[in-house]
Amino acid sequence: MKRVYMDHASATPVRKQVIEAMLPYFGQHFGNPSTIYDMGSEIKQIMEEQRAKVAKLIGAKTEQIIFTSSGAEANNLAIKGVALAGQKKGNHIIISAIEHHSVLNSARFFERMDFEVTFLPVDEYGLVDPERLLGAIRPETILVSIMHANNEIGTIEPISELAGICRKKRVIFHTDAVATVGNMPVDVNELNVDLLSLSGVSLGAPKGIGALYFRKNLRLMPLIHGGIQESGRRGGTENVPAIVGLGKAAEIASEELAQNEIHMRELRDALVSGIQERIDQIKHTGHPEKRLPGHASFCISAIEGEALIYMLNQHGIYANTGSACASKALKTSPVLVAIGIAPDLAQGSIVFTMDNSNTVEEIEYVLEKLPFVVGKLRSLSPIWRERVAA
Amino acid sequence: MKRVYMDHASATPVRKQVIEAMLPYFGQHFGNPSTIYDMGSEIKQIMEEQRAKVAKLIGAKTEQIIFTSSGAEANNLAIKGVALAGQKKGNHIIISAIEHHSVLNSARFFERMDFEVTFLPVDEYGLVDPERLLGAIRPETILVSIMHANNEIGTIEPISELAGICRKKRVIFHTDAVATVGNMPVDVNELNVDLLSLSGVSLGAPKGIGALYFRKNLRLMPLIHGGIQESGRRGGTENVPAIVGLGKAAEIASEELAQNEIHMRELRDALVSGIQERIDQIKHTGHPEKRLPGHASFCISAIEGEALIYMLNQHGIYANTGSACASKALKTSPVLVAIGIAPDLAQGSIVFTMDNSNTVEEIEYVLEKLPFVVGKLRSLSPIWRERVAA
Repeated sequence: MKRVYMDHASATPVRKQVIEAMLPYFGQHFGNPSTIYDMGSEIKQIMEEQRAKVAKLIGAKTEQIIFTSSGAEANNLAIKGVALAGQKKGNHIIISAIEHHSVLNSARFFERMDFEVTFLPVDEYGLVDPERLLGAIRPETILVSIMHANNEIGTIEPISELAGICRKKRVIFHTDAVATVGNMPVDVNELNVDLLSLSGVSLGAPKGIGALYFRKNLRLMPLIHGGIQESGRRGGTENVPAIVGLGKAAEIASEELAQNEIHMRELRDALVSGIQERIDQIKHTGHPEKRLPGHASFCISAIEGEALIYMLNQHGIYANTGSACASKALKTSPVLVAIGIAPDLAQGSIVFTMDNSNTVEEIEYVLEKLPFVVGKLRSLSPIWRERVAA
Repeated sequence: MKRVYMDHASATPVRKQVIEAMLPYFGQHFGNPSTIYDMGSEIKQIMEEQRAKVAKLIGAKTEQIIFTSSGAEANNLAIKGVALAGQKKGNHIIISAIEHHSVLNSARFFERMDFEVTFLPVDEYGLVDPERLLGAIRPETILVSIMHANNEIGTIEPISELAGICRKKRVIFHTDAVATVGNMPVDVNELNVDLLSLSGVSLGAPKGIGALYFRKNLRLMPLIHGGIQESGRRGGTENVPAIVGLGKAAEIASEELAQNEIHMRELRDALVSGIQERIDQIKHTGHPEKRLPGHASFCISAIEGEALIYMLNQHGIYANTGSACASKALKTSPVLVAIGIAPDLAQGSIVFTMDNSNTVEEIEYVLEKLPFVVGKLRSLSPIWRERVAA
């Protein structure tokens, strides 16, 4: 059977060049970079080269990158690291209402610790209003965290503007860029952020690796206490093979990103307009233009998203509903609620996330199968039957 | 040049069978285990099989294992997870004076948060006295963490006795078993512990993976907040290839451990007695019998450990001085201070950690080179010259 994989936000196959780059570091060059003999210092050198490649991809300096085990860990380190280091200055955190669970639940964790958290609402496209952010900042605000782009609806936030406001107010600004780094150009100086999280998964690097960019002189309490690894900011033996994988993937992205982005945009636009032409009573979620290049998301009326995913699966099509992490929670997506989608429409959420390996033929295949599957599911839906009969 | 690697506590080459087991999960079977379609549920199934293998190795139940990114993360999760979940019950933690940095600095972190930490002294062999532990427990004690074995001096602590005391007193007991799991049989029921940390590195699994065993119904605040991964106890996309690597390594260890242990003991005993015969004015550190099978540690008088490591390196011999993580801190090892070694003697620390791949020929090579290197370094030492002249 044909396999059309369009859930790259959840997982991506590691690229062959990346696997090849990593392989020697499992068995042959296995030294611990914290050891002082030649095997250790050689590995340390290799590791710093990877750090430079990751830094280059986002316009940072080498020493501003901390390797973590995931984007989620980078988000936790940013929120908890800043809040714990700054709790004498203030106890107020601002995040958007549509943050990833790793940001959301890190912030909620501080509500138990005498912090207050403001959840900024978003508009119907999922955009945070800079004026609203300005109005929410108080003297005791020590951290604002707003994601670069949302995985569920694809909307890209006006980060440089939001971060600029925080810069003026001397409030630390973090952005979760897991959805953007690897999918579009990202530059920490243009974005004007103090902290930025990224994940290997979005880059064709393996699972188990992420990174946090941090502005120099920013105080950060470690999340994982330990030895002198990562300049004392993250304990535990460094995951050298995965770091090499992330470095290689960042190097490839630096070279290919501009062209990949054009390809992904073309595919996405064809998919979006094709679906809109073929299926009625649907809502294209997120911002129509300010969105991730390979991201198409809809809510389809009178359909259960999970049933849709299962039936597409039977045709070899892989997509997602709601955010990947929440997919088993079986409740209405908080992101879709935040943009004002009615709960019954939100049930029919479907999200396609593409990468450069997807093709025009695959889009055509989805456009052939999706209307058929939707039609079949609707034919079984009492709500739909009533509506058609009316 | 010959290479004799005897620093397995710092890093181990990943075994070929383990690499082969992992490889398909980078490119071919790359799905995210939290997704609901077939690719996801297949990976989820594979992941649970690995969890069962890790559980089996330590006599635990499958659902009692949380995968982490390292032994250090497992230690952080245990200490912080228990302390944060239990802070309403009490604010006192007890650890030994010779814990790994990830335990030590996690405990110290709570000193900033109105907790009190008791650092239990150890005797000249590095052993914690059960009577002293009993005396240190207060009504507000919520957690005791004492390592199974110490990486720097090899001593194995009387965990079942120490944990038994805590069980009676209803205090949660954690042990850092990073040094033992994979090197000797470990059973969580025999040890009678509530929490146990292990690392892939000691098992011939890749870097970037560890696990925490936890007793059922034990309350644990996540260290990495996120989605529903690891039953909500650890956020972030699961590191499937590394988890498969850990599972395979645990499976191999379950089969081979008993025989490997005999081999490692023989090598160690030959190394220890050989060094004692050939070099004078040295101290064998740690307990003479209650010690890790592949672990030999000494303090050599009138020598700088770092210089010794560099010179052995030139002969292709890889060993360590002090604990791997602290090796760049250039200060006297707190572990050696805790067992009462004088600071100048502690400077001359050397640690050999073997695994099953080491051979009798390698021991002979070390026994040939080490006395020569020590003699050379001593001939350059003013302290030694004075002593010889006296």
